[in-house]
Order: sequence, then structure tokens, then C-alpha cells
Amino acid sequence: MGSPEAIARSAKIAAGEARAGRQVAVVVSAMSGETDRLLGVAQNLGGGLGEPETDAALAAGEQAAAAFMALALKSEGLKARAVLAWQLPIQVDGAPGASKITGIDPALLEACLAEGVIPVVAGYQGVGPDGRLATLGRGGTDLSAAAIAAAIGAECDIYTDVDGVFTTDPRVADDARRVARISHEEMLELAAQGAKVLQTRSVEYAKAKGVTLRVKSSFLPAGASGGTEVVPVGALAERRVVSGVAYARDQARLSLHGLPDGAAAPAAVFAAMAGADAHVDMIVQSRARDGGVNLEFSVERRDLGRATAALEALDGLDGARIAHETDLAKVSVVGTGLRGRADVARTLYAVLQGEGIAARMVATSEIKISVLVDSELLERAVRALHNAYGLHQA
Amino acid sequence: MGSPEAIARSAKIAAGEARAGRQVAVVVSAMSGETDRLLGVAQNLGGGLGEPETDAALAAGEQAAAAFMALALKSEGLKARAVLAWQLPIQVDGAPGASKITGIDPALLEACLAEGVIPVVAGYQGVGPDGRLATLGRGGTDLSAAAIAAAIGAECDIYTDVDGVFTTDPRVADDARRVARISHEEMLELAAQGAKVLQTRSVEYAKAKGVTLRVKSSFLPAGASGGTEVVPVGALAERRVVSGVAYARDQARLSLHGLPDGAAAPAAVFAAMAGADAHVDMIVQSRARDGGVNLEFSVERRDLGRATAALEALDGLDGARIAHETDLAKVSVVGTGLRGRADVARTLYAVLQGEGIAARMVATSEIKISVLVDSELLERAVRALHNAYGLHQA
Repeated sequence: MGSPEAIARSAKIAAGEARAGRQVAVVVSAMSGETDRLLGVAQNLGGGLGEPETDAALAAGEQAAAAFMALALKSEGLKARAVLAWQLPIQVDGAPGASKITGIDPALLEACLAEGVIPVVAGYQGVGPDGRLATLGRGGTDLSAAAIAAAIGAECDIYTDVDGVFTTDPRVADDARRVARISHEEMLELAAQGAKVLQTRSVEYAKAKGVTLRVKSSFLPAGASGGTEVVPVGALAERRVVSGVAYARDQARLSLHGLPDGAAAPAAVFAAMAGADAHVDMIVQSRARDGGVNLEFSVERRDLGRATAALEALDGLDGARIAHETDLAKVSVVGTGLRGRADVARTLYAVLQGEGIAARMVATSEIKISVLVDSELLERAVRALHNAYGLHQA
Repeated sequence: MGSPEAIARSAKIAAGEARAGRQVAVVVSAMSGETDRLLGVAQNLGGGLGEPETDAALAAGEQAAAAFMALALKSEGLKARAVLAWQLPIQVDGAPGASKITGIDPALLEACLAEGVIPVVAGYQGVGPDGRLATLGRGGTDLSAAAIAAAIGAECDIYTDVDGVFTTDPRVADDARRVARISHEEMLELAAQGAKVLQTRSVEYAKAKGVTLRVKSSFLPAGASGGTEVVPVGALAERRVVSGVAYARDQARLSLHGLPDGAAAPAAVFAAMAGADAHVDMIVQSRARDGGVNLEFSVERRDLGRATAALEALDGLDGARIAHETDLAKVSVVGTGLRGRADVARTLYAVLQGEGIAARMVATSEIKISVLVDSELLERAVRALHNAYGLHQA
């Protein structure tokens, strides 16, 4: 939520749902810029992320926003009240700045709903075992919403600035279409592969609890946003083989040729990567002609410096050659229908060959195939795969 | 507290107290401008003062400030934590925007102090019987501080922008001196008569609980602020007859001549004033030569329009003549030593006569004499009385 006008607009959406006869609970994030402002003051005074006092300061942003939203709903002629995390309570494990939700008592929410009062819950926060406020970190308000939906047995609409999940980025392929329904797993893979619609934590929580999420646009009037339903995989009656094509720029590839045989060297390599806070994404291990091991993996470009420094400092690589390559991008094809379908890989390789695009690395999961390509070929790869899997067709 | 710099400055003061070996608890107000900003957004969304949601929004200001102050104290190398009203709790009667404190559980504060942790409490708020946040209204943070001091058996330093209470306004009399000690009652009278140092609610609370207040400047380094101690009257070993001269501008006088005899007409008049939300200050009732009643009273200038309209709408005044006069100011002499001292009134009248100042109305209480004078003569009256009662002398 940005300005007071944005709050009023969001309130109109919630009011529309309530007038349509639905019981509505609202979970809010802080007003746009407010979290940064509070964090700025905290940092100015020596506070950092992950400190209990910083958390108490940040939580104030959602507290005020909950009050504002309740006021806006009252202006719409509805009954509403702000509900703060400690009033329910929303229990968390208490890790400052990165808490996990451990339980929600729905009694107060249910009492509100029974009386026709819309509870407006301050997102992003909970009360730890020590009775202090702690925030949930990135995507915290979406997570709060999913958890509250689970606690009261509701479905969860998440309003964002886009009208749902698309088969790929419309800025890359202008025939990208909105996906009406998708499974939690596909949503998680799309997010992990670069789609920026939803934070994965809320989807993981919803998946574990069987909560239906709907991604909608807060910029469209109530009813005008088609949105995307994110549902348990069993609820997908008719499945497309592929649901979407995601991508991520600024990838780098590291390769180690001639590692000693056995698991010790790769284990040391990935321990070193974790120690250097370099997030390893795709991994390919192969056997070299001479009996040694070749290891290739990708990291984000910004992690490359730390990653190579950590590798060079590593003993026991037995003279392996270390190389790296940048200017790479990752394209991923995601779909529950990929499970056990050999022709998906065939299509992928055929498309890349037809476009003259070299796959610098390929990695697969049950419902995803990712391929690393030259950066300059990224958009062509996205469009070609989007087309090849029929995603441009309704 | 204004900027982050002001918070850091206040933290240095508290840190100085702690390093001097004292156990310190801190109560904070919102950062300067923050309450207005939050109220502005609330009003923009249809919220008003005295609504529970507006209170929840406003309370966020002190919550963030408590966190900021705790961070600033940590930066000073001390142990500190933010303590929110609901964590103690601070119980209030729950009236939105105007709550009274009904109880404070000091256990968490005492636990902090025992561990050498400075608790930083969010002022201005408490938790009502319904479990919701409610704010205390004007002067709320000072009131929170006095109440917390009472709960943990502490003395209460209130930091403001002036270095204590002065014998009169230094802008009017340049020989005004800081008062080192004063009784709660005198402080209350000075505040009621126009001195703007402390909100009366904190002084009333402190008086009832026997809490010593100290008014100090947050702009002076720790130790450099002399301040004023506000103590129970019994703790004043040596009393001056008069402690200070206060004043208030923009007063108006209403007079009703020839009211019917008896208490009915005055009762109706003051009921009408209360109904018109006109605050009646000084009252003089006298018997007219013809056996009727003359009634004169003062109100603030801004209440005059409502007051006269209410009088003119009143039945049963039996043709009494209603008149009013503006351009008046009130000068008040306050001191516990006034009790039973006839020479105080003598001095007052002698001074006014010597300065050629007509007293338009005089009212007395046990420890105060107030006189209404022409606005243009106000400063001369303040200086002359300040001098006549020896307040210019150390």
C-alpha cells in the first residue's frame, strides 16, 4: 500500500468483497516507503537488521497501516477494527528480522467475523516466546496473510501490482498470457527461477496448509482483476504440460576440472560456497576422461567474486583447474506436466538448436528444466520456448 | 524528541545517569511531527480523534520512538530494550484519545532494572479493558512517565525545551529566575494560570502518588541543567511566600447585571457555559443595590462567541443586562505562602495602584491571586508584581 489514496483504493476492493456477502479479513503491509524510513532512523542510531529494537521500530509501520485500513473501511460504511499481532496473538519463533510463524490463535478473528466486523491485521510481525515483537523478514506480510487464512480456514487473496502470474514476462514476449490456475509447486518453481510475483515463503506455507492463494492486482477495480489462483496440485483438473517460462539475468558459471575422485572435493567446494554466502543454483557433475571429477555450477553474478576467492583459498583440490564465465542468463520451463515426460527435454533441445542457442548448462527438477544461455540470447530463448510449449495460445 | 540527533542527545543524558550508578527507566514520546503525520493520514481516511483506530495509528509513533531510543542507548554501550504498553501492561480505562491510567504492572520493568537493562517505555498509551490500545491525550507521555515512576518507586525527570520552572516568563521580565523547588500544588496553579512548562495531568498524578518530578532541559548536557524539583508540599523546608507570577493573554469578561435573586439563574448560566464548551475561569458574584444579583466571569477570548450566543438563548434571566469586554489579560501570583497572608493582597493592590493599573476582576484561591487587567498593561503588571514579591532576588 502506498499513499492514503492507495489505502482507500484497497479498502474499496475489500469493501466490494464484503458487500458481495463474503466474510473478509484483511492483512496489511506498511505504507510504501515507511519500512525504509523507520529502518533508516534505526540505522542512524546504530541499529541493524536482526535486532529486537529494530524489529519493534519496523513493526510500527504495519501497526499504523492496519489502523489506517480499518479507518478507510469504516469510511466505506463497514465495521472494521485494527488487530495487532500481540492481540491474537500471532506466535513466532522470535528470531529478530527473520522469524517463522509457529501458531495463530484465531479466536479474536472469528469473533470479529461473527459480529460482521472486518479484522485488519498488521502483517509482517508476531510475538516471540519472550513476549517481544519480531518481524518475519522479506515477504513477511504475504506470509502473515497465508498463515491467517490457514488459521481461519479461508482462501487468501494477495494484492500486488500485477494482475496475476503470467506464462512469461510480458516485457519479453508480448503474447504472454495470464495463468488462471497453477499449483503451489509450479508457483514455487517459477518464483525460484526468477518470476517476481510472490515471495516463496507465503507459497510454501500455503502449500503445507492447503490454502488457496489468489494473486490479484490492487490497481484494478474489484472483479476486474482476473488474477491467478494458486491451488494444491490435486485441485488442478486439467493440466498443461508447461505453465510458464521464467528467467533470471546476471548468472555466472564456475567450473572445476580435474578434481580428485570421490565426494570429498565436491563437499569441500560447496561448504566453501556456503561459507562465502554464495548461493549455488544449478550443479552439474561429470566424470573426466582421466578418472577425475569435473564440477560445474552456477551462482549469481554478484556472488562470483566471493565464490572464486573462496575456491582459490581451498586446499585439497589437487591442482584442479578453476575457471569462470559471466554474461549468462537462466531460462526455466516450469510445469507439473513435466513429470516423466521425455518429450519436454526433446522440445527444449530442439528449440535451442533451431534458434542457434548453445546450452551452457542444463539442470532439471521434477517440474522444471533450467538452461543457462548467453545473456544476449536470453530474450530469444524465452520467446522461442514460450511459443514451442504453446503458452501463447489460450 | 525531534530528529535522530535529538534522540541520540536524549540517550546521552540517560546514559550519563546510568553511568552515575542510578537505575534508569526511560519513557518516550513520538518523534517531533510524527503524531501530526499519523493523525493527518488517519484524518485523510475519515478517522478522527477519539476513535480506537486513530489511537492504534498514533500509538505506533511512540512504539517506534521507544525502539529508536533503545538503539541509541545501546550505541552508548548500555543494555536497553523497548517496552511497549501491552507488554507490561499499562492498563487504562480505554476511552479513545483521552484514557486514564488505571494500573501498571511493574514486574517487567523491575526485571529489566535488576538485570542492568534500561527499559524504554512507549509513552502516551495503554491497553483498555477490551485489550485494545488507547492513547492518553494531551500531555500523555508526561503522564505515562509520572505513573511509571510511581509504579516502580522512582523519581521522575521530565525533559523539555526549558531549564525548569521560572518565577515568571523571562521574555516579559528579564530578571526572572529559575525556581529550584516548588510544590505540586504551586506547579498546578502556575500551569493552570498560564505557565506552559508541564501538562497538569502528570503533576496531578505525581501529587496524588507523592512522586517527585524534575523539569529539566534536554538541550543542556547531563548535569548542566539545574531544573526545577516539583515535590510534595511537606518536603519544602523553607517556603517563599510567592513562587511565581504566571499570565495568560486573550481573556474576555462577561457580565450579567440584574439577575433574579437566588441560585437558579447563576446555575442556569454556568450550565449554559458548559453546554457551549466555554471554559469559565474567574467568577465574581455580587449583590446589586436593587436586591438582584450581578454575575461576572471570565472566559478565553476564543470561547466568547459561543458563550454570548448561549447566554442570549437562555430563558429565565429576567431581563438581566448582558455585556462583555475583550482585550484583557490575566496575571496570577502563586505561592503556598499565600495561605492566610493578608499582606499578599495588600501588596497586590498597592502595586497595581502604584502602576496605574485597574483590576477588572480579582479571584483568589488558597495559593493564588489572579487579576484581570487591560492587555496592554499585562507586561507592566507582571514585572511590577515579580519585583514586589522579591522574585527577582536569589
